[in-house]
Amino acid sequence: MTENRVYNFSAGPSVMPEEALLEARRDLLNYKGSGMSVMEMSHRSPVFAEIFDSTQEKLRKALSVPDDYEILFLQGGATLQFAAIPMNLSCGKTADYAVTGNFSNKAAKEAEKYCTVHLAATTAPEHNRIPKQNELSLTPDAAYFYYCANNTIYGTEWQYIPETDAPLVCDMSSDILSQPVDVSRFGLIYAGAQKNMAPAGLTVVIVKKDLAGKELPFTPQVMSYKTMIETGSMLNTPPCWCIYMLGLTLDWLLERGGVTWMQELKRERAKRVYDFLDNSRFYLAHAEKDSRSDMNVTFRTNSPELDAAFVKEAAARGLVNLKGHRIAGGMRASLYNAMPMEGVDALVAFMKEFEREHV
Amino acid sequence: MTENRVYNFSAGPSVMPEEALLEARRDLLNYKGSGMSVMEMSHRSPVFAEIFDSTQEKLRKALSVPDDYEILFLQGGATLQFAAIPMNLSCGKTADYAVTGNFSNKAAKEAEKYCTVHLAATTAPEHNRIPKQNELSLTPDAAYFYYCANNTIYGTEWQYIPETDAPLVCDMSSDILSQPVDVSRFGLIYAGAQKNMAPAGLTVVIVKKDLAGKELPFTPQVMSYKTMIETGSMLNTPPCWCIYMLGLTLDWLLERGGVTWMQELKRERAKRVYDFLDNSRFYLAHAEKDSRSDMNVTFRTNSPELDAAFVKEAAARGLVNLKGHRIAGGMRASLYNAMPMEGVDALVAFMKEFEREHV
Repeated sequence: MTENRVYNFSAGPSVMPEEALLEARRDLLNYKGSGMSVMEMSHRSPVFAEIFDSTQEKLRKALSVPDDYEILFLQGGATLQFAAIPMNLSCGKTADYAVTGNFSNKAAKEAEKYCTVHLAATTAPEHNRIPKQNELSLTPDAAYFYYCANNTIYGTEWQYIPETDAPLVCDMSSDILSQPVDVSRFGLIYAGAQKNMAPAGLTVVIVKKDLAGKELPFTPQVMSYKTMIETGSMLNTPPCWCIYMLGLTLDWLLERGGVTWMQELKRERAKRVYDFLDNSRFYLAHAEKDSRSDMNVTFRTNSPELDAAFVKEAAARGLVNLKGHRIAGGMRASLYNAMPMEGVDALVAFMKEFEREHV
Repeated sequence: MTENRVYNFSAGPSVMPEEALLEARRDLLNYKGSGMSVMEMSHRSPVFAEIFDSTQEKLRKALSVPDDYEILFLQGGATLQFAAIPMNLSCGKTADYAVTGNFSNKAAKEAEKYCTVHLAATTAPEHNRIPKQNELSLTPDAAYFYYCANNTIYGTEWQYIPETDAPLVCDMSSDILSQPVDVSRFGLIYAGAQKNMAPAGLTVVIVKKDLAGKELPFTPQVMSYKTMIETGSMLNTPPCWCIYMLGLTLDWLLERGGVTWMQELKRERAKRVYDFLDNSRFYLAHAEKDSRSDMNVTFRTNSPELDAAFVKEAAARGLVNLKGHRIAGGMRASLYNAMPMEGVDALVAFMKEFEREHV
């Protein structure tokens, strides 16, 4: 890292590629001769339209999004999608929800305002594993099956795409762009940008076009997928700066080999930490082995006091934001796309050292 | 202007203070020794909490917001507020809407999904004036009275605060922070940030706390004012970067004398253009004199071809985004808070020159 930067293990918003930040800084007052910052551009100007369109194209390329899917750039975060999804897709039917953590639980609770929710699976209260296909209780003729691909708080990640008759709806907020994904298996994929994509304030929705157009009558216009498809995400002013930063992140990703490259990298990052954890009797990993997240490694020592000391001493070494989420405790190392391997190695070295001192 | 920047007359997103952009650039990779960009910060980290809290305080100071009002930092733009306002405040009653332009018209249309809308006034189709107090048709016991303080497309601006028994709800997207405002006269003030405050992606809502808590049952959680008040706008991840930029804009404003200073400046900016227009027989101002906006000056020549030539030649001189909105035609010069007086003078000089050449 340059410029006295730290290794930032925050679960989100989180570390971004330094290359993207450097380019943003270079063009901050004058984007490519336009005479203005991207922050100052009319969203309807040709110079911004080019940024917008090329970012959509790069995302379509990175995830091989088929033509019958629309990519939307929205606002409101995953939390607004918790409502938008049943508003647009439930059509008076029952929707199946797999609850494997905090955010899928919140999504299911919010959906109850708009449709009948069937709990297709739950891993509460431990949330240390992902249910297997044969554990899923599926409703015949469900409106959709909803799950969250990666659970940031508990550090678990679906290792397979569920088989269902209903359209799959997936919250990929915390593992999008970390691996290839067969988009054609899904009805809708969405992600808050603030982990693997861009600064907080942008929500990416990838929706099969033929699912749109059946929204409940009281759906706000800006939450209607149909309206946002028809207006190219420009019914109103989009979060322009975040879209620009997503474009820079995608440049960085695509120039290096895209999601195939990233998948190798993310596996290697996670492996280095999990291998160490598995050989340690001092630290305890939270998630079951076959459900482990490559993005968020959750672990603890045998005492909350030691956990607190770990977090504090790590921060003094420039390894920051390692404290676990308040509802899970312990530690959490988020190893998102932009985390350099040197950061992972520095973390493991510190874990070793801390163990030696406190065992 | 430094660094080969243009004078940007865009109606929004629009010009920002160069001082704010310079500071953002300076700290882009490492905010005040934190070792990371503001774009990478956990919204729950102490370093970001300080940015968030101080920005709220600065806004409270700049607009003298009383203690019984909450300042919310939300997403979704004015367009999501078009739905959120009736969802939260209509309580099954009729709401009065004054339609004086495109955005108040859209707000009224969206509100029809959630309550009975009464047209308290309309200036359609010309929208070249603001109705007088005695023209307002007020519903007894209305849930609220809604208006848009400044109409960007048509270049008109309310010169008074309406007298009503119902709580006033005001869209100040395009003139907030341009003058002192007696917040205590309002039930709710809101503004998309992308004109006078910050980059697109942040919506500021200033709401009297005792109005919250009566939302319709299907209100998405993130759209409930009550929930957002209770969570300090942190039910979910806020648009952190935009909030940071708002803080930098407020520093710039407050250091120079706040909204009192800005009011003098905005009047002087507008006066220089209107005075010229009033002495010209070549250009025609759209708005009636007593309804004119200080923020957006709308005018035209007697031919669409000349209008197009004006816009094109101005751009070649570094005076950009002067084309009127597509539904109004002609020209529009947006003179938002960050427009330097030199930009105004350069515009007037060009208008003179263009007139001499084409009269």
